[in-house]
Amino acid sequence: MTEHRIKIVEKILNANDRLANANRQRLDQSSTYSINLMASPGAGKTSFILATIHALLDENIQIGVIEGDTAPVTIDSDKINAAGMPAVQVNTGGECHLDAVMVENALDQLALDDLDLLVVENVGNLICPAAFKLGTHSNILIASVPEGDDKPYKYPNIYRGLDVLIINKVDLLPYIDFDMNYFRQGVEILNPGLTTFAVSCKTGEGIEGWLDWLKAKLT
Amino acid sequence: MTEHRIKIVEKILNANDRLANANRQRLDQSSTYSINLMASPGAGKTSFILATIHALLDENIQIGVIEGDTAPVTIDSDKINAAGMPAVQVNTGGECHLDAVMVENALDQLALDDLDLLVVENVGNLICPAAFKLGTHSNILIASVPEGDDKPYKYPNIYRGLDVLIINKVDLLPYIDFDMNYFRQGVEILNPGLTTFAVSCKTGEGIEGWLDWLKAKLT
Repeated sequence: MTEHRIKIVEKILNANDRLANANRQRLDQSSTYSINLMASPGAGKTSFILATIHALLDENIQIGVIEGDTAPVTIDSDKINAAGMPAVQVNTGGECHLDAVMVENALDQLALDDLDLLVVENVGNLICPAAFKLGTHSNILIASVPEGDDKPYKYPNIYRGLDVLIINKVDLLPYIDFDMNYFRQGVEILNPGLTTFAVSCKTGEGIEGWLDWLKAKLT
Repeated sequence: MTEHRIKIVEKILNANDRLANANRQRLDQSSTYSINLMASPGAGKTSFILATIHALLDENIQIGVIEGDTAPVTIDSDKINAAGMPAVQVNTGGECHLDAVMVENALDQLALDDLDLLVVENVGNLICPAAFKLGTHSNILIASVPEGDDKPYKYPNIYRGLDVLIINKVDLLPYIDFDMNYFRQGVEILNPGLTTFAVSCKTGEGIEGWLDWLKAKLT
């Protein structure tokens, strides 16, 4: 037998991950901090982005948004534009998550050098988005009180990869059976010590803690 | 050139659809009416099944449930068992929807001849379940008031294939900005005349209309 030299490839990246790395490089070059914002449908992703934009209006922070939807609608990007910030709408054509290619195309349509923060609003889904890197700096999930306290137990994968968890719609706690301890225990098992903010985008409750975290990332 | 006879295959079914047809045959043979129950996470699928079971306790109707989850948990099937009905838990292993194979395997574990009704609780997801037939007789979606009134516009595919729409958590309407007319207009465009019941599984409001529809199917 002839002797073969064995090449050791330390880490083989799939096509999506390679593109995600390229996206990250572009974002780093323009000094744009970026967030992959995930949630199930109606948890309040767009409301959370709008609350963040409004709270930072006097801070001279430029925020761009990529809006992922499975259908050709501009409901969310219209709201971002109305708040005075640029938004790119991505129609996934029925696909259940964004991927690095879609984000790459959207980045082409944004003036990245002008942006301090880029929020990528993923498709409303607790399963598929967890499996696709986009190149963003942090993964943030919005869990919503009306969804119930058992979601970490039922959708563990998405919780494992999080950098920040937002618990939204706490203004509805008096009207809903939601055991905060049970919820937090489920999260703790999957992602010990996870940075968590309980907020209401409707009343503004709890939003300051989130803004402090974010502003520390933008400096 | 030799002459070829052209065979016309009127409808080519993919593997999933073939198995779905076989599932339907089994359900028809045992006279079991079956429902594919879909919704986003936390819209109240299990609560809706439990409300239905409790409301029909005196009617001598046997109800079986297949519970689809992406993780190996028995939270929902335990609740069904506690209500006195048989349940089979299906762990999709991270997959974002049930398919006909998973339902076939679950059917093997149920005494179908004893069941009048089989409810298949799909994975919490507004996108992927719409694309996979299971063999059930009707597709039912639970939309939840806290998810917001724009969901038909953002997730049109799942609405197009529905036989019945349940609007759940109407007890929360006083605390939420939800324009019922805007929501219903979005549904009407996608699925004109869709049978719709507005309910609260918590208070029992509106459940009678749903029960009447269901009982008519079971006779």
